[in-house]
Amino acid sequence: MRQMILMIDGVADGLNAKTGINLLRYQPEQVAAAIDRAPGAATCGERYGIGGSVPVITGLDQAPPADTFVLAVAPAGGRIPVPWRPTILEAIGRGMDILSGMHQFLCDDAEFAAAAAAAGVKLIDVRRNNARTVARRKGIDPRCLRIHTVGHDCNCGKMVVSLELARALTRAGHDAKFAPTGQTGIMIEGDGCPIDCVVADFINGAAEQLVLDHQHHSILLVEGQGSITHPMYSSVTLGLLHGCLPDGLILCYRMGRTHHTNIDVACRPLAELRELYTTLGSVHYPCKVIAVGANTMGFCDAEARSECERVEAEMGLPTVDIVRHGPARLIEAVLALKRELGK
Amino acid sequence: MRQMILMIDGVADGLNAKTGINLLRYQPEQVAAAIDRAPGAATCGERYGIGGSVPVITGLDQAPPADTFVLAVAPAGGRIPVPWRPTILEAIGRGMDILSGMHQFLCDDAEFAAAAAAAGVKLIDVRRNNARTVARRKGIDPRCLRIHTVGHDCNCGKMVVSLELARALTRAGHDAKFAPTGQTGIMIEGDGCPIDCVVADFINGAAEQLVLDHQHHSILLVEGQGSITHPMYSSVTLGLLHGCLPDGLILCYRMGRTHHTNIDVACRPLAELRELYTTLGSVHYPCKVIAVGANTMGFCDAEARSECERVEAEMGLPTVDIVRHGPARLIEAVLALKRELGK
Repeated sequence: MRQMILMIDGVADGLNAKTGINLLRYQPEQVAAAIDRAPGAATCGERYGIGGSVPVITGLDQAPPADTFVLAVAPAGGRIPVPWRPTILEAIGRGMDILSGMHQFLCDDAEFAAAAAAAGVKLIDVRRNNARTVARRKGIDPRCLRIHTVGHDCNCGKMVVSLELARALTRAGHDAKFAPTGQTGIMIEGDGCPIDCVVADFINGAAEQLVLDHQHHSILLVEGQGSITHPMYSSVTLGLLHGCLPDGLILCYRMGRTHHTNIDVACRPLAELRELYTTLGSVHYPCKVIAVGANTMGFCDAEARSECERVEAEMGLPTVDIVRHGPARLIEAVLALKRELGK
Repeated sequence: MRQMILMIDGVADGLNAKTGINLLRYQPEQVAAAIDRAPGAATCGERYGIGGSVPVITGLDQAPPADTFVLAVAPAGGRIPVPWRPTILEAIGRGMDILSGMHQFLCDDAEFAAAAAAAGVKLIDVRRNNARTVARRKGIDPRCLRIHTVGHDCNCGKMVVSLELARALTRAGHDAKFAPTGQTGIMIEGDGCPIDCVVADFINGAAEQLVLDHQHHSILLVEGQGSITHPMYSSVTLGLLHGCLPDGLILCYRMGRTHHTNIDVACRPLAELRELYTTLGSVHYPCKVIAVGANTMGFCDAEARSECERVEAEMGLPTVDIVRHGPARLIEAVLALKRELGK
């Protein structure tokens, strides 16, 4: 089992640490430490509210034994933060593999490539892909129930809902599989498709291929990306929606968020999003929104409860925060759809 | 001025020759010959109904003097047809540059690269790009009128409408510019963005950049790609629609076509498409469909006339085939929108 050092330095300056946070959440036994130079916390539990006693360190000289150095943030555009270069080179020099989900590939960087060759370590770019298949709409197994998470924004909980739900369904005895489409999910699950790094003409085809690869499972939870209304990423969102041919959608959102991540444009209301996703998703194959996944992080239990009740009443759909309230009602919604479709 | 040999061999077997056809239409003075081994025609005029006396030849041994060999077809997936390899190598050996719009890059092919280096010729992959900018919605000039062609399918006339309309507006004294987004348009115009070969996360950003690069013109005609309902390419279509922030849309379709190109899925009705494009296009910035561009190729004048009248009545929008009926009514629709928006 790998032992990872998570590079999360700069979060205090606005870097998005979702990769690190979710590795702490889902693979805590594989995380040795997190590097974060902002002062004030000795453990990840204190600093990020997750990760318990995993130490926060300020440099590799303090690192416990580990074999993998992870660039554990997700900045818009996916560039490797320039101030990190010396630390990455130091990790290579210490004999660690480097794991990255950036658009800017480690392998294409002459300095990193040379250092890695000299040290005999691997540079692992999880977004690198060779997807060159257009969608064909052939060979789709009608028995596999496909559930797809969509959202009002990026970074609002689609991966967490997909993954938690797949695990919960599996625990309940169903043959369910999480199909990741982003860097963090791929790092956790060990397979999947880095859809946002696929060449445009092949996005829909790559999503279809993900289904073809895993449809021997009876329930597939395909992670969504971005939002159909996100000015930066809507193309990725639609390619997934059309390519993975979902039977059911779970509409995810972050409580209290009013504007899209990284851009000063308002998010659209959930009712409008439900209409957009249903209309577009059903153009050739019928699909519907079966539940709402609320991400209530940062609010208290009472606030979260009242928010979910409000949205549930407004949308007429089961609305829960899967982390806070558990998966039961989402499982129920999925199994109800499974029965309805006779799958 | 370059002199091109268009490789169109295999059209009789179903290869899509739109690149060749449009080079014949818009740059006839630069086309020396077309290679097409199907028997029965001596000129492009006879074979394709366009290109007049440009000879159809069966091999480079019959070719008139030329400096550029063009892979002038657009197959789904963009692979270089394998049977063409010897002819491409022969063209390189004869000292010709190779111009390609395929996804499979000539430059990445060791055999072509070595041959080109030995012969001192260029391998020009127009789809190769380095777009790495996300959309920002900043710096958009409100004075530039952005018109975007959208369609019920790919290969239905969006490029022709964009290009013809830009030329006609220019002839009428307006400062208009065709902004190509596909291989054929880029070959004709000499600039543009090969949007379907951009990495997924940067599609919307690349479309926005195309606007930023050309918005000093008062009217921009941004070529659309695919269709919002095309199972293979809808992601590209939406990225363009959101990225180029159109004021007005021209909805293009091919008369008589009932199913999407390259896939057995029905096209949607024009009224539904208008609704989809308007709703999605207007999520953050208001846009509307201002006209319908009918592609009536293969029908007689009376059929075309009656089709356009029918669609015009149904849609309540000016409906013309710009090639057959001229640009006057589309110009009118564009200028009416320009006045309405005070641009």
